[in-house]
Amino acid sequence: MTGRLTVVGLGPGDARFVTPEADAALAAAEAVYGYGPYLDRVPVRPGQARLASDNREELARAGAALDHAARGATVAIVSGGDPGVFAMAAAVCEAIETGPGAWRDLDLAIVPGITAMLAVAARVGAPLGHDFCAVSLSDNLKPFAVIERRLAAAADAGFVIALYNPVSRARPTQLGAAFATLAEHLPPSTPVIFGRAVGRDGETVTVVELGRATETPADMATLIIVGSAATRTVDRPGRPPLVYTPRSDAGGKA
Amino acid sequence: MTGRLTVVGLGPGDARFVTPEADAALAAAEAVYGYGPYLDRVPVRPGQARLASDNREELARAGAALDHAARGATVAIVSGGDPGVFAMAAAVCEAIETGPGAWRDLDLAIVPGITAMLAVAARVGAPLGHDFCAVSLSDNLKPFAVIERRLAAAADAGFVIALYNPVSRARPTQLGAAFATLAEHLPPSTPVIFGRAVGRDGETVTVVELGRATETPADMATLIIVGSAATRTVDRPGRPPLVYTPRSDAGGKA
Repeated sequence: MTGRLTVVGLGPGDARFVTPEADAALAAAEAVYGYGPYLDRVPVRPGQARLASDNREELARAGAALDHAARGATVAIVSGGDPGVFAMAAAVCEAIETGPGAWRDLDLAIVPGITAMLAVAARVGAPLGHDFCAVSLSDNLKPFAVIERRLAAAADAGFVIALYNPVSRARPTQLGAAFATLAEHLPPSTPVIFGRAVGRDGETVTVVELGRATETPADMATLIIVGSAATRTVDRPGRPPLVYTPRSDAGGKA
Repeated sequence: MTGRLTVVGLGPGDARFVTPEADAALAAAEAVYGYGPYLDRVPVRPGQARLASDNREELARAGAALDHAARGATVAIVSGGDPGVFAMAAAVCEAIETGPGAWRDLDLAIVPGITAMLAVAARVGAPLGHDFCAVSLSDNLKPFAVIERRLAAAADAGFVIALYNPVSRARPTQLGAAFATLAEHLPPSTPVIFGRAVGRDGETVTVVELGRATETPADMATLIIVGSAATRTVDRPGRPPLVYTPRSDAGGKA
């Protein structure tokens, strides 16, 4: 009997963002694993086991779900956003690579979801309308010097930059350092978008200039988009400004 | 009377990927604008106008939909994938910036969707599991030298790279040139994923090494993901290999 593990992306918030494919995968699962707050978004189904774990325990969670599936069960792991973007899909692949051979025999499926940068971008216009990148600011898993080098390279090359995991209690200073690095490579007027809890209760979206970005509060529920030199702001009377990056692009900073 | 324009992302393929938010926006629209093949994915609703236009006419389509909404109507424009990623949302913002002042008074909403790179990544594992970027290879709207500079910078900095719009009849040579540039900055063994028509009839997903990437056919329905130096392949007996980029990252090429 071959088990099945599906890694399911829930999107950034409530049920509006959950695709029919994700719904079907959750309905088919005998057991659902996940970080508690993500699991809380999954409708309770009679007879379906729910196994919550802490945010820091991605590899252990992946192993537990794989082990469960290897015993012949149909198992789901949930991620907020998209499971392939700084989330559970890579942890599951890593567990498979280093784990028992039986885990390579499982039916593995990954169900994509709306990742946070797409939801935040949609709130303000089209800041990701041209070439862009996504960088995790967490230095739990990479040196901060690598992060700073990537930010500088991306800004110089004209990429719009989405910052995931911008700050946590254990890492209070990285975001300020990241903005300082970016300020060396981009004009102070570059638009910076702070999207907090987008798609959930208490959503806030704030647009500031890079020169004042360090004054804006952020936490782990915040996704930040830093424009390129080409990103534009369009004022609208009585409405928040639009922020977009034009489809045509002369190339930014040389 | 204030009109409303909603730019709706349909995701990469069939109804499995259409979020409830997108469904609701389409159901509420009096008129739906879009490139023909995307419009064909929208269920026909009695009394709802459907206005198809050609792929090259993004700005004209945006203007027509804005003009329609400015007459007080509830209008939707559809995009494949996510409307904010190389798609209609930027064209709508550009039209608003340069068009009549009344267009700034409209209710504008953007509904995110699953963009192609997320769907392709999900098919093979987690190639976007760490820092990544998205680059359009179309040089209709930017010089190819800018594209080559971005690819080199992204590869050197350790980003996984998703290539949108890799080739068209009018641009048969760019993709080969892009692979040649990338080969100067990445090992020949770097995994390259070709996802064609993912989520639709005739889906194919192929994983090759960068050294052989030019031998693999691609067209405008193809989304290509080029790994970083950290991206790994996990063989599975009797199944296609997994491709993933580990969550921890020492920084790639110095």
